[in-house]
Amino acid sequence: MAKHLPHGTHTPVLIIGAGPAGLTLSHLLHQAGVDSIVVERRSRADVESTIRAGILEPATLELMRRTGVGERVDAEGIPERGIEISVNNQRTRIDLEGLTGKTAAIYPQHEYVKDFIARRLADGGTLLFEHTVTAVEGEVVSVETSSGEHLSIRADHVVAADGSASPWRAQVAGLRARHEYPYAWFGLMVEAPPTHRELIYATHPEGFALISKRSDTLQRYYLQCSPEDSPEDWSEDRIWEQLHRRADSEGITVSEGRITERAVLRFRSAVTEPMQRGNLYLAGDAAHTVPPTGAKGLNLAVADVQVLAPGLVRAVQTGERDLLDKYTELALPHVWRAQQFSWWMSSLLHAAEGESPFSARRRVAQLHSVLESEAGRRFLAEQYVGTRAQEV
Amino acid sequence: MAKHLPHGTHTPVLIIGAGPAGLTLSHLLHQAGVDSIVVERRSRADVESTIRAGILEPATLELMRRTGVGERVDAEGIPERGIEISVNNQRTRIDLEGLTGKTAAIYPQHEYVKDFIARRLADGGTLLFEHTVTAVEGEVVSVETSSGEHLSIRADHVVAADGSASPWRAQVAGLRARHEYPYAWFGLMVEAPPTHRELIYATHPEGFALISKRSDTLQRYYLQCSPEDSPEDWSEDRIWEQLHRRADSEGITVSEGRITERAVLRFRSAVTEPMQRGNLYLAGDAAHTVPPTGAKGLNLAVADVQVLAPGLVRAVQTGERDLLDKYTELALPHVWRAQQFSWWMSSLLHAAEGESPFSARRRVAQLHSVLESEAGRRFLAEQYVGTRAQEV
Ligand SMILES: Cc1cc2nc3c(=O)[nH]c(=O)nc-3n(C[C@H](O)[C@H](O)[C@H](O)COP(=O)(O)OP(=O)(O)OC[C@H]3O[C@@H](n4cnc5c(N)ncnc54)[C@H](O)[C@@H]3O)c2cc1C
Ligand SMILES: Cc1cc2nc3c(=O)[nH]c(=O)nc-3n(C[C@H](O)[C@H](O)[C@H](O)COP(=O)(O)OP(=O)(O)OC[C@H]3O[C@@H](n4cnc5c(N)ncnc54)[C@H](O)[C@@H]3O)c2cc1C
Repeated sequence: MAKHLPHGTHTPVLIIGAGPAGLTLSHLLHQAGVDSIVVERRSRADVESTIRAGILEPATLELMRRTGVGERVDAEGIPERGIEISVNNQRTRIDLEGLTGKTAAIYPQHEYVKDFIARRLADGGTLLFEHTVTAVEGEVVSVETSSGEHLSIRADHVVAADGSASPWRAQVAGLRARHEYPYAWFGLMVEAPPTHRELIYATHPEGFALISKRSDTLQRYYLQCSPEDSPEDWSEDRIWEQLHRRADSEGITVSEGRITERAVLRFRSAVTEPMQRGNLYLAGDAAHTVPPTGAKGLNLAVADVQVLAPGLVRAVQTGERDLLDKYTELALPHVWRAQQFSWWMSSLLHAAEGESPFSARRRVAQLHSVLESEAGRRFLAEQYVGTRAQEV
Repeated sequence: MAKHLPHGTHTPVLIIGAGPAGLTLSHLLHQAGVDSIVVERRSRADVESTIRAGILEPATLELMRRTGVGERVDAEGIPERGIEISVNNQRTRIDLEGLTGKTAAIYPQHEYVKDFIARRLADGGTLLFEHTVTAVEGEVVSVETSSGEHLSIRADHVVAADGSASPWRAQVAGLRARHEYPYAWFGLMVEAPPTHRELIYATHPEGFALISKRSDTLQRYYLQCSPEDSPEDWSEDRIWEQLHRRADSEGITVSEGRITERAVLRFRSAVTEPMQRGNLYLAGDAAHTVPPTGAKGLNLAVADVQVLAPGLVRAVQTGERDLLDKYTELALPHVWRAQQFSWWMSSLLHAAEGESPFSARRRVAQLHSVLESEAGRRFLAEQYVGTRAQEV
C-alpha cells in the first residue's frame, strides 16, 4: 500500500498525519481535483484501531454524506437525538432533535478514519503509512520510513495535521493561548449492555461521570478524577461504587461488566494563532486542543479542513492565494466557539477540587437556570450539535 | 412623624431598616393585617434622596401595582423594552419585551422608597426615622434615637433588613459564601440629554461601560475601573475619552454634561445561609450582596420579603411556624439564581486585569454565541427581567 515514491517527488499538497483532519482534507482536495500525499507515522492497523472521539456533529455527517463517505455511518452510527443531564441523581433530558431540528451520531473516530482511508485508497490516493515527517524546510519535506529509509518530497503547500504534539506549530509561531483545568477524566471501556439509550452527563458533589454507549455490548464510561491520578489509583470496587453514586438515577443503574481499557485523559485548552505561515498550515489538534466534555475535537478538525480545502484548491488551480491567506481569519471564530462551549460544559459539570462554597452553589444554580428554561436548553443543544453551517 | 413610643412597647414584627426590603415587608404585612414597626437610622430626607439601584423587574412592578403602590411608577417609570449590548463598538439589541413578553422599568430606588414610605404613613404605619437599633436580644430590641434617647421594644419577630453591613448577620451565623471581583465601577451622574433610548452595556478591550438614562436631563454612566481607584484618579478628560472609546457606536455618541456625582462601586457577591435563626430573620442586602451588573439588588430584596411575609403572617395570625421555618429554603433558590446571573453578566462583560489571552478570547466568543443565537438572547433576557413568579 505504501507506494514507492521516487526521490524528489513533487505534490501540490503534502499532509502530515492520517487523522480525521488529514484524511478529510485529502478527500476534499481529491473531490475538487487536487492531488495530495498523506504521510502517517503509524501503521494503518494502528490508526484504524485507536479509540478516541465518538460523536459526530450533524455538519460532519452532512460532509460525509455529501462527499460519498456516509454509507456506513448512516447504517451503523447511533443517532443521538437527545442527551440526559443528571444533577445530583435527578435527570433532565435535552431533546437535541426537538430543540435544534438536528441529530448528531455516535460513531467512533476509528470508524470515521477507516471510512476515509478506504475511500482515499479506492480513489487512488497516496497514503504513506509508517512514514514519519522529520523536517519541513520551505517546499522540502523530509520523510523517514519505519525501516529507516529517507526520502524527500517537494510540496507547494504543507499541512501539519499531525495532532496535538505537532512540532511544526513552532514554525508558525505567534500566540499559543492556553488553559489548564483542575480535573481529568478516567476513561473506561466496559463489556456490558447499555446503561441507557442516550448519553448521561452526570454531575454530583463527588464528581462528574459520563455514561456513553458504543454498541449493544460495549460501553464507554468516564469518571472525573484528579489530573495526577493514574489508573492504578482506581480499584474495580471504587470504580463501580463511584459510577453508581454519581450516575445512577430513577430507573437507571449503571450496567457493569469486564473493564477492557483504562486511561486518564487530561483536560487542556489551547489555540494557536495564526494557523498558517508561508506555505505551512496547521489543522485540527495540531492547531488547537479542546477538553473532551463538549465532544468537539474531531468535529473541529473537520471544520478546519472544510475552510482550508477551498483555499488550497483555489491556490493550486488558479494561483490565487486570497482565500488561502484568509484561512486563519475564517477558521478562528469556530475554533473559539468550540473552545468556549467545551470550557462552559466542563465548568458547568465539574466540581473543581477546592471549589469555593460560592462557586459550587453558583454552578448548581447555573445548571438549574439552563435546564429549567426552554431557551437555556436550546442554547445548550444548539452548541452541542454545533453551530457551523452544514453547507460549505 | 417619629411617634413617641412608650418604653416596653410590643409589636408582632420589628423591622430594622427602611430600605426596599424593610418598607416592602412592612407594607405586605399591613395588607395582610399584621402590624409592624420599622426602625431606620437615617432621616426620611436622607433615605428618600440616596441614589442607588434603578431597574425594577416585572415581578417587582407587579407587586407594586397589585398592592396599590404602582400609580407613580406607571406614570413616571421608563419602560425598559430592550437593552443594547455593544461588543467592541458594535451593538446588538436584546429585545426584552419580544423575547420574554415582559417589560422592566427604569425607576430610581429612592422613588421606590418614597412611594412605600408615603403609603405606609397614609396607612397609619409606624416608621421611626433617626432611630438606630443597637441590640437584639431575643424578643428585646434596643433602640437609640438621634438625640441620644434609649428605648426598648419587645417584638415576637425581628427582621434585619438593615443592608449589607448588618451586624445581626453574625447572630444568624452559618455559612457566608463570598466572591470578590477584580474590577469595580466608577459611577457618574451627568446633567446631559439621553445618549440613547435604551441602556447600553458596552464591553471593550479597555473595559466595560454602562450608559443608562435617568431622565431627559440626567444620565447615569458607569466605567469599569480598578477596585483600588478613587474618583480623583479620573480627570474629566479621561472620563469622556474613555466613555466615548468604550461606548460610542454607529449613530450613538455618549452625551456629555456637568458631572454631579462620582463614586466607586465595589463588586462583591455574598450569600448568608441560613437566613434565619429563632425569631431573627435576614432580608435583602443584610443576607446577600450582588454585584451591580445584573441590577438584581433591589429586586432580590423584594423577592426575599415576598417569601418572608406570608410566613410571618401565618405565624402571627395562627401561631403556625411551618411556613416561616421554610423561609431560607424557599428564598435561597432565587438568591442563587440572581447571584449566578449577576456573576455571569459581570464575567461576560468585564475584561479582568491580567486576564489570560485564552480567557479574553473565550469571553468574546461567548458573547458572540449568546448574541447571535435567538435562544442565547432569550436565555439572557429571561434572566435579566427575572425568573421569579409574578404572582405570589
Ligand atoms: C483519548 C482521547 C479521547 C478523545 N475523545 C474525544 C471525544 O470524545 N470527542 C471528540 O470530539 N474528541 C475527542 N478526542 C479528540 C479527538 O480525538 C481529536 O481532536 C482528533 O483526533 C483530532 O484529529 P487530528 O486529525 O487533528 O489529529 P490526530 O487524530 O491526532 O491525528 C494526527 C496523526 O498524525 C500522525 N503523526 C504525528 N506526527 C507525525 C509525523 N511527524 N509524521 C507523520 N505522521 C505523524 C499521528 O500518528 C496521527 O495519526 C479525544 C482524544 C483522545 C486522545
Ligand atoms: C451605589 C449603589 C448602587 C446600586 N445600584 C444598583 C442597581 O443599579 N441595581 C440594583 O438592583 N441594585 C443596586 N444596588 C443595590 C441596591 O441598592 C440594594 O440591593 C438595595 O438597596 C437593598 O435593599 P435593602 O432594603 O436590603 O437594604 P438598604 O437599601 O441598604 O436599606 C437598609 C437600611 O437600613 C438602615 N439601617 C442600617 N443599620 C441600621 C440600624 N442599626 N438601625 C436602623 N436602621 C439601620 C440603613 O440606613 C438603610 O436605610 C446598588 C447599591 C449601591 C450601594
